[in-house]
Amino acid sequence: MKRRTFIKTAAVGSAGAALTAPAVVRGQAQVRWRLASSFPKSLDTIYGAAEVVSKRVAAATGGKFEIRVFAPGEVVPALGVQEAVQQGTVECCHTAPTYFFGKDPTFALDGIIPFGMNSRQMTAWMYDGGGLQLVREFYSGYNIISFPCGNTGAQMAGWFRKEVKGLDDLKGLKMRIAGFGGVLIERLGGVPQSIPGGDIYPALEKGTIDATEWVGPYDDEKLGFYKVAKFYYYPSYWEGSAQLSLYVNTKAWEALPKDYQAVFEAACAEAHVDMQAKYDARNPAALKRLVANGAQLRALPRPVAEQGWKAVNEIYSDLSSKNPKWKKVYESYSRFRDDTIVWFRFADGSFDSFMASTKR
Amino acid sequence: MKRRTFIKTAAVGSAGAALTAPAVVRGQAQVRWRLASSFPKSLDTIYGAAEVVSKRVAAATGGKFEIRVFAPGEVVPALGVQEAVQQGTVECCHTAPTYFFGKDPTFALDGIIPFGMNSRQMTAWMYDGGGLQLVREFYSGYNIISFPCGNTGAQMAGWFRKEVKGLDDLKGLKMRIAGFGGVLIERLGGVPQSIPGGDIYPALEKGTIDATEWVGPYDDEKLGFYKVAKFYYYPSYWEGSAQLSLYVNTKAWEALPKDYQAVFEAACAEAHVDMQAKYDARNPAALKRLVANGAQLRALPRPVAEQGWKAVNEIYSDLSSKNPKWKKVYESYSRFRDDTIVWFRFADGSFDSFMASTKR
Repeated sequence: MKRRTFIKTAAVGSAGAALTAPAVVRGQAQVRWRLASSFPKSLDTIYGAAEVVSKRVAAATGGKFEIRVFAPGEVVPALGVQEAVQQGTVECCHTAPTYFFGKDPTFALDGIIPFGMNSRQMTAWMYDGGGLQLVREFYSGYNIISFPCGNTGAQMAGWFRKEVKGLDDLKGLKMRIAGFGGVLIERLGGVPQSIPGGDIYPALEKGTIDATEWVGPYDDEKLGFYKVAKFYYYPSYWEGSAQLSLYVNTKAWEALPKDYQAVFEAACAEAHVDMQAKYDARNPAALKRLVANGAQLRALPRPVAEQGWKAVNEIYSDLSSKNPKWKKVYESYSRFRDDTIVWFRFADGSFDSFMASTKR
Repeated sequence: MKRRTFIKTAAVGSAGAALTAPAVVRGQAQVRWRLASSFPKSLDTIYGAAEVVSKRVAAATGGKFEIRVFAPGEVVPALGVQEAVQQGTVECCHTAPTYFFGKDPTFALDGIIPFGMNSRQMTAWMYDGGGLQLVREFYSGYNIISFPCGNTGAQMAGWFRKEVKGLDDLKGLKMRIAGFGGVLIERLGGVPQSIPGGDIYPALEKGTIDATEWVGPYDDEKLGFYKVAKFYYYPSYWEGSAQLSLYVNTKAWEALPKDYQAVFEAACAEAHVDMQAKYDARNPAALKRLVANGAQLRALPRPVAEQGWKAVNEIYSDLSSKNPKWKKVYESYSRFRDDTIVWFRFADGSFDSFMASTKR
């Protein structure tokens, strides 16, 4: 630095706040982001996660980092959010990665695949098992950096108009089921249907479809399926948990001040744990109300699980031979799943089992 | 505002940064806190949670909010942390609330009680079931505000030199077991022992004690118990999960700028989910190594669970008749536990059960 310049700067500094000004500008930068959610506001727990992030980020930056949350259709359609982030139309979105499995099945490994990981396994793989690094490597090809942002826990298999007593009852069954689960239902002899949320109830009522899956008791109750399909099956082998993710456009992320990045990451972690907590707190009471309203709880027959397990392993091995991106992430995913699942049967599983027995 | 004052301020403002200075000072206030941990650095997952908070808070404030983490004995002994926060000797601590059940058993309801809630239930009660508000009301009497900050998940019952085939084998059994669990072991005929972590191994080796509980595979492996007590029992009915909490002195909290408060809260939530993730990722491999090294896995016999359940309900009902603080929090805790546990058997439990069966 030239001596004259130094003196001049120092002089201004001593007279006012000029010397610290650069830090001030950086720390207090006004940043406005738009977040496109894939979820309707009626799904308050899932849609709400984006609001948890938005509120926390605002509070932690004195309102300087604003993230405005938009419902589907307000700026981007529900399933257009990934592309909107990729292209930079919006800075970020909150979505279910499994929605984009048709584009590349690898997306689903950041959300859920049939016979995949439970909620705690998935979070463990993300945070401490190398999962997050692997999915981020995949997402970098889409100009996206991802953040785990919520999980529903194990879902229910869905609402069926007739009892499912064995594999035969799935033959020709028209079932509304999204994403990867549809591929599995097809392998089991069913006919997967793609129907938007609002149209499911009338289709089920008229018998246009025989069954539908949605999420779990708390969300399902809102759509009233128990009125038109009495049999409520568990568990969802297609969604043994379902992670939601927050996608951020890579350039928008890189342009974000480091302290705002840190705030954003912590806010996503908070929304991640908060969503699972809300489902866990609200599902039990909703299930009781559903049963009181006539829902008949049933476990999917064991042969359905066994045949499904066999079918998905064929699908996954086929994918691994064709898609190197899938192969790389799936190898870590499936190894982690297989290495950890048995542990949960010992301490947590046997504790839960006894505690549940005290209520019977 | 008087006109003259306004003009003067405006003039200074236009010449420099004076007008924005108050906001700058607030947003960039240098805050230094000391955090006393109850845990040795060797328990990297638990001790590490305080470091996760410290690092996140620093990164999110450009280094302006510094929290220095101290191991036990550096500023406060392991079990002196609660009092140190209450008296303002340190601004905050990271601890297991159950350590202070002797002072008032209500503390344990923020951590774990025998036959209490599993990890997901506890977090759900904290975040969405009214639990956090209730424990904070209790803590306000100690000048403390609490933040959930980690959970171990269901622990193992412990290491036993001899097999436990029934209740008779607990009679006169000298077991190192901390806190509330000790009260239960005593009711079951055992003799609870209070021994610091570093002294357990020699006591077990010499036969001064017959058994010890610690945490779970990942932590237990470090202390080498498998070398001197072969039988490794599950689950810990005394710690079906164990929540750790971050206590902040109320005055220190109130003096903290609002944006730093927001950062701190999000950082605690992040550490909360991060610790459970680390245990879930690391326990399975540790269990495999322990078994490979000769540990004999055993389930506690059903009569032990049944007798224990009966005993704790007598203890809890006795406490409720004597301690109104306990009664208020326990009523919410036990209702939430009882209302939610059955739900976990349907979707999550049956999914986990099938998935574990694929590995046998």
